Amino acid sequence: MSSRCAACKNQTRKCSSDCIFFPYFPANDPQRFACVHRIYGGSNVGKMLQQIPPYLREQAANTLYFEAQRRIQDPVYGCTGIISKLYEQINNTEIALAHIQTQIACLKLQVPQEKAESNFNVLRAQSSGTTEFQWQSQVCWFN
Amino acid sequence: MSSRCAACKNQTRKCSSDCIFFPYFPANDPQRFACVHRIYGGSNVGKMLQQIPPYLREQAANTLYFEAQRRIQDPVYGCTGIISKLYEQINNTEIALAHIQTQIACLKLQVPQEKAESNFNVLRAQSSGTTEFQWQSQVCWFN
Repeated sequence: MSSRCAACKNQTRKCSSDCIFFPYFPANDPQRFACVHRIYGGSNVGKMLQQIPPYLREQAANTLYFEAQRRIQDPVYGCTGIISKLYEQINNTEIALAHIQTQIACLKLQVPQEKAESNFNVLRAQSSGTTEFQWQSQVCWFN
Repeated sequence: MSSRCAACKNQTRKCSSDCIFFPYFPANDPQRFACVHRIYGGSNVGKMLQQIPPYLREQAANTLYFEAQRRIQDPVYGCTGIISKLYEQINNTEIALAHIQTQIACLKLQVPQEKAESNFNVLRAQSSGTTEFQWQSQVCWFN
């Protein structure tokens, strides 16, 4: 049974005890290394991991793998395509929230003052948190 | 004055008339090529562009550049960090919307039936569009 990691197996070389790939690209998941190798090149992945403190390397390897998978699935837009869609959906939610707040304002006028107060104190506190969703409205924001 | 693109200039080679980089990596923006070269390697970028229909190559070059910039700015999380934050914010908005809808239901009980109807028809139509925001709740969804 081989004790080499997926990267060293792929490159048919010995896997040293301090191999940068060994903890993050196990031999039993060759597809994981193949993916990052195809998009970034094995030596670039090694260089990127080397530049990161050891305790953050696992997260870096995971995000590189995720982004490589996305680029293979969507060679034109990659991860940027996901980000575009999320921005668009946040914009749509912003619009929906604004409509709902207008409707609430209308209802407030119809509800007797003393009854409305207790509800609207809660509403005010919540709606003040929505200012963080002020995104750019263009879809092609990455150009 | 050189007629070579940024990639050919960087690699100190001749820039042929059918150079794959020429339209997307102009000589007057050497930083753009340097960025993708550092993350993906020049030859990987060339290979990726070759595999994409010509009319989509500009978008692909833009998204590769965007993702490379992000990886340089955030070597651990890259673009995946942006996606994580957007998922988290969408989750928070979902929660805020659910609270608002509960408040609206409370108000509905307080508003005379005939007055409430016209407002809530609009609200119902809007809230039915929020089902698309049912995201995974974990922050580390990419692992």
